[in-house]
Amino acid sequence: MVYELYYWPGIQGRGEYVRLALEDAGAAYVDVALVPEDKGGGVPAMERLLTDTGVERPAFAPPFLRTGRRLIGQTANILLFLGGRLDLAPRDWPGRLWTHQLQLTISDFLVEIHDTHHPVSANLYYEQQKLAARRRAKDFRDNRLPKFLEYFERVLTRNSGGGPGMVGKRISYVDLSMAQVIAGLHYAFPVASRKALRTRPRLRALHDLVFARPHIRRYLASNRRLAFNNDDIFRHYPELDG
Amino acid sequence: MVYELYYWPGIQGRGEYVRLALEDAGAAYVDVALVPEDKGGGVPAMERLLTDTGVERPAFAPPFLRTGRRLIGQTANILLFLGGRLDLAPRDWPGRLWTHQLQLTISDFLVEIHDTHHPVSANLYYEQQKLAARRRAKDFRDNRLPKFLEYFERVLTRNSGGGPGMVGKRISYVDLSMAQVIAGLHYAFPVASRKALRTRPRLRALHDLVFARPHIRRYLASNRRLAFNNDDIFRHYPELDG
Repeated sequence: MVYELYYWPGIQGRGEYVRLALEDAGAAYVDVALVPEDKGGGVPAMERLLTDTGVERPAFAPPFLRTGRRLIGQTANILLFLGGRLDLAPRDWPGRLWTHQLQLTISDFLVEIHDTHHPVSANLYYEQQKLAARRRAKDFRDNRLPKFLEYFERVLTRNSGGGPGMVGKRISYVDLSMAQVIAGLHYAFPVASRKALRTRPRLRALHDLVFARPHIRRYLASNRRLAFNNDDIFRHYPELDG
Repeated sequence: MVYELYYWPGIQGRGEYVRLALEDAGAAYVDVALVPEDKGGGVPAMERLLTDTGVERPAFAPPFLRTGRRLIGQTANILLFLGGRLDLAPRDWPGRLWTHQLQLTISDFLVEIHDTHHPVSANLYYEQQKLAARRRAKDFRDNRLPKFLEYFERVLTRNSGGGPGMVGKRISYVDLSMAQVIAGLHYAFPVASRKALRTRPRLRALHDLVFARPHIRRYLASNRRLAFNNDDIFRHYPELDG
């Protein structure tokens, strides 16, 4: 079973949360948009699945995953689907829903992170919305960033499963996502995130633990892992870091 | 089994998507924040579950649902949980995931609808962010609103299950949510939404069908249904309607 992942080339974006799960599990997958067009890949292959009238259950936007005849969209939904198959989620249904609930909260967090640099429109350049971005980023640093991190630190503290992650005994896909968010915050908001993480030792430890996992290390050392960059969700603009 | 729904009083908000499912199914539920404080309800009862250290799996924010010993947060996740129990979702797992995927796309749509009037911060008044709101609302009307409606109309068109909704033969919770979104758009953006819906007959028909369902009619005629108002996600500011 080779999974086909469809996502924009050139950025980590939301596709990265799916990649981290596939990589950690050592699953076979193809990043279809990176395959040459004359071999059936590239962005046109992705766009076909978004627009072709023959697709009964089209995704609204990338990322989406194809496996067999199934096409699954929405990052958190893809991870809900993969969690059990990749052994990166609890086996019980309440545990699955709880892991998914946390992933959805990460999705919300990501929208707010993205909108610090694009509060007016994703169709405009950052330079066209700098003033609103400064105001939104200030609110993010002062209110939203601490609120989200406080919440996830609390979840880590209260995990009665005895594991180092947020759910149960073992690392699950939501821990991989959380570590990626922390890495992204370090890139985008080095000052604000260092300050906010000072009092969240469990989140710092989770970040280090995830990025020390052998398969994740191998992935980071590969050419499959893109660097953070300013076309992505996490962008470093010093003026937004306060 | 009486479900306990926890959500802010005075607005429909995200709690409304859960209410519509419970009401349509004729399920027994209590809106806990509306119960008097001296009877164990009110906002303090809700805030206890958000902050008490004894809660192992706390929600990040309302709405959340309590049933037995379980506490479930994130609107779409609550509906994923309830869908099968209330017979408002397909029985097969691929159908469940697809319904949920659509609900997550509605969640994304709702964030963008909300942010038309609060592009800078939910902690500031609308009056403090009117300029950015005008720009964001223009982008919403010109680009995002048509894109989302076009997508959902396409999903309705392609449903091979033969039903009037987005999934399978019968109405599911995501159809109830979609009808509520259309009603909200009519309130908030009467001009722009009328224009955008002109070419989406299936969405218009779905809205009418859902609001004609006996249990939904009964709910709308009850004092449990709040009116749309300008403290809510959908707000009517004529200057944002273009």
